[in-house]
Amino acid sequence: MLDVGRLRRDEREIPSWDVSCDVLVVGAGCAGACVAIEAAQAGASVLVLERAGGPGGTSALSGGLLYLGGGTPIQKACGFDDSPEEMFKYMMAACGPEPDPQLIEPYCERSVEHFHWLVGRGVPFKPAFFEGAHEPFSSDEGLTYSGSEHVHPFNQIARPAPRGHITQQVTSKGSLLMRHLVTAAEASGAETRLQHRCEALVVAGDGRVVGAVVRSPAGEHRVRARRGVVLTAGGFIFNDEMVQRHAPHLARCRAKVGTEHDDGLGIRLGLAAGGEAIRMETGDISLPLFPPNQLRQGIFVNRRGERFLNEDAYMGRAGEFALLHQEGRAFLIVDDEVFVRPDLFPIEIAAVGESIAELESELGLPASSLEDTLTLYNRHAERGADPLFHKGVHYLKPLVTPPFAAIDLSPESAVYSAFTLGGLRIDASGAVLQPSGAAVPGLYAAGRTTSGIAKQGYSSGMSLGDGSFFGRRAGRAAAESG
Amino acid sequence: MLDVGRLRRDEREIPSWDVSCDVLVVGAGCAGACVAIEAAQAGASVLVLERAGGPGGTSALSGGLLYLGGGTPIQKACGFDDSPEEMFKYMMAACGPEPDPQLIEPYCERSVEHFHWLVGRGVPFKPAFFEGAHEPFSSDEGLTYSGSEHVHPFNQIARPAPRGHITQQVTSKGSLLMRHLVTAAEASGAETRLQHRCEALVVAGDGRVVGAVVRSPAGEHRVRARRGVVLTAGGFIFNDEMVQRHAPHLARCRAKVGTEHDDGLGIRLGLAAGGEAIRMETGDISLPLFPPNQLRQGIFVNRRGERFLNEDAYMGRAGEFALLHQEGRAFLIVDDEVFVRPDLFPIEIAAVGESIAELESELGLPASSLEDTLTLYNRHAERGADPLFHKGVHYLKPLVTPPFAAIDLSPESAVYSAFTLGGLRIDASGAVLQPSGAAVPGLYAAGRTTSGIAKQGYSSGMSLGDGSFFGRRAGRAAAESG
Repeated sequence: MLDVGRLRRDEREIPSWDVSCDVLVVGAGCAGACVAIEAAQAGASVLVLERAGGPGGTSALSGGLLYLGGGTPIQKACGFDDSPEEMFKYMMAACGPEPDPQLIEPYCERSVEHFHWLVGRGVPFKPAFFEGAHEPFSSDEGLTYSGSEHVHPFNQIARPAPRGHITQQVTSKGSLLMRHLVTAAEASGAETRLQHRCEALVVAGDGRVVGAVVRSPAGEHRVRARRGVVLTAGGFIFNDEMVQRHAPHLARCRAKVGTEHDDGLGIRLGLAAGGEAIRMETGDISLPLFPPNQLRQGIFVNRRGERFLNEDAYMGRAGEFALLHQEGRAFLIVDDEVFVRPDLFPIEIAAVGESIAELESELGLPASSLEDTLTLYNRHAERGADPLFHKGVHYLKPLVTPPFAAIDLSPESAVYSAFTLGGLRIDASGAVLQPSGAAVPGLYAAGRTTSGIAKQGYSSGMSLGDGSFFGRRAGRAAAESG
Repeated sequence: MLDVGRLRRDEREIPSWDVSCDVLVVGAGCAGACVAIEAAQAGASVLVLERAGGPGGTSALSGGLLYLGGGTPIQKACGFDDSPEEMFKYMMAACGPEPDPQLIEPYCERSVEHFHWLVGRGVPFKPAFFEGAHEPFSSDEGLTYSGSEHVHPFNQIARPAPRGHITQQVTSKGSLLMRHLVTAAEASGAETRLQHRCEALVVAGDGRVVGAVVRSPAGEHRVRARRGVVLTAGGFIFNDEMVQRHAPHLARCRAKVGTEHDDGLGIRLGLAAGGEAIRMETGDISLPLFPPNQLRQGIFVNRRGERFLNEDAYMGRAGEFALLHQEGRAFLIVDDEVFVRPDLFPIEIAAVGESIAELESELGLPASSLEDTLTLYNRHAERGADPLFHKGVHYLKPLVTPPFAAIDLSPESAVYSAFTLGGLRIDASGAVLQPSGAAVPGLYAAGRTTSGIAKQGYSSGMSLGDGSFFGRRAGRAAAESG
């Protein structure tokens, strides 16, 4: 790993500049493209550096889903009523502990505008609602419940509305999203250089970031940024050392969501220039047991045979509860009618029994613990109730048909997938903040290089969502600064 | 809060030095005193700066308890068998998630030597074992179980031994500890200046820390440190902004353990000089319901009427489980025989009932949830067993005598006490590390300014323990560097 000392260079060490621009963008993913478009629109000359051989980054590999709401045309066309206020209530409840209202408020307030802006850049959304679990993997509907909006306890806190807006295409949705955004960035006049890696930020005597030292196959380049540098270089899930040091529980997840360039370089550059990293322990931990939804008729239990979450919760919430709160020592209990293999990942069966008592004993659970849990669950499920966890009534079905089985949710058996959510602290304009709360002059950031709207609690689409939203703001702020 | 940019000064900005020393120590608590003693012993001229009007810091307000083991004379005199290996096993299980074996291994390996060193500096420990809950508040025994060594699951992982070594005195034990250490520091030749606040570290062109800018009532002083600066300035529990940003759950605890100088200044100075802060979310969260131990005969339940922890666990573990895993929505259920008011803090009764069913209904718990839990608990407790949580047999007593009561464990009612455990990353020599893993030349740290042996999981005595142990190492390393 690079030395932070080397990630910061004193302007006095730079004898001359090889290239100059107004706004320098580090990373050509979703956030970087949106920075470039808005900065160029605001009249700045923009140079985008991308380490890979093509633009797109992790965003291009994603499901092309953005968390938007407050009453978008797609929500309206699908018959859902939403408002910035309800969206705010949900996010403040679901994006914590302790989400930042200073980021979430403008995000909700301007979400409809952001939707129109994306459409204006060519991103298509089909006005059709996907009823299935989570998101459409083989169809092109434009709207889905991508979090826990419609399930307990969030459906008691805010009026439920689906807010996962999906780029219209049957497959490679993220790739299409990025094709439109990259095209828009090019059209706006921003220049992109591939295979260019930012090695250091250049800092003037007064602490202002004034450029970068960059390496390409052709050698080293000193790039002057007259107005600002914007870091949009992804998270750090592919940096094992950083994960171990800051978010060691994520190391237990076998699937990492990202590319090898999610190695924390953006965060480390920001730190070297005086920025602060916050909530570095946070990360999305998904337990993708669903689809199919049928499995939600089973019940999650821990090693004491107790339930611990409504089984219709978002997979990121299920992953967090099972891995963090139960240390991964948990099971999904199903009967013969409910059992089915998940679509996405393999599973392992920890035990099978002709009776619950046998299953309990096979699992080594305390005597009558699982039996008591099942008795209580079945008694209420029979009348369509779940007083303990308030799972949706359509998933309530007594588990009574042998054989019974326990799907192993330990991270060694189940495939948990993870990416990091911690990073540089920014304000609502995208400015990188110092520990004092003052901005680092000339430095901005967006996307997973930052700690954004999701401070642990996550819903699908929040990364492309805050990357694009605060990317635009950072682009404008940088273009207008200096 | 100060600006990190201002917390770091370029050596070129310093026209001349007002004072020179070999090793400069920032903070005169337990860690700082141990730095001073060892650095002076190694032949260095040592200057210790303390912001307060007297030395001692938070350590002087503490219970004077140090986590030591591996077979100390006190352990032996009290009839307990311990070894560095068993101590290591316990700490690796109890100090996580993901504690750092590179710190814990030498800590265990050299713990007996460290005990003798403390005794050599005059710190008295009486060879008597305290049987009560946690630690003696009104007697002077020298040894106690200060963590969860003797309870499930840790008693299955390592051979239990008490490791809380307590400075011998009936009251003000921490004050006595500090009196001895401060006296030893003075005797070793270290000079201490009170009411001196470190405002910035001075960094040379090659990144080496070469001194500090200091403010006292007499004005600003530029202090040259020829060999190194050691940061031992406490944690950040009294910095509301830092807590909110990095460890927001600690803000929910009403009691803060520390002094107003636990404002994160040491951490911020280290960051400004290129160090890295890690595990900033971690903190000790204690739920001091005990003593008396009698209350451990009750059962912890969450808002679904489920138990969630063996009630004989260390109060730091109880606090963490209740506040973090149950969001503070939990109760201690007692019957008339068990109920008693805790010695240390007031409690609030959430509900009382003549039957468990009435209590359950009063608490708004799901129908029959608490009843089922009690039925199962009582059935096993009757025969001295707790198959779900393995609470010690002496605390197992069926709860059958009305009226029944629920003690409210929400942070608004119960007094949770907290201090921070996150901070600068150090190696086993006490050197402050950069994100790259390389040391910041000339910079060392110890105590709660660092992320030490307790990476969330805590046992009493670990702060004075690692502060003194790594303080000594940092003192030696600084004296021998440069």
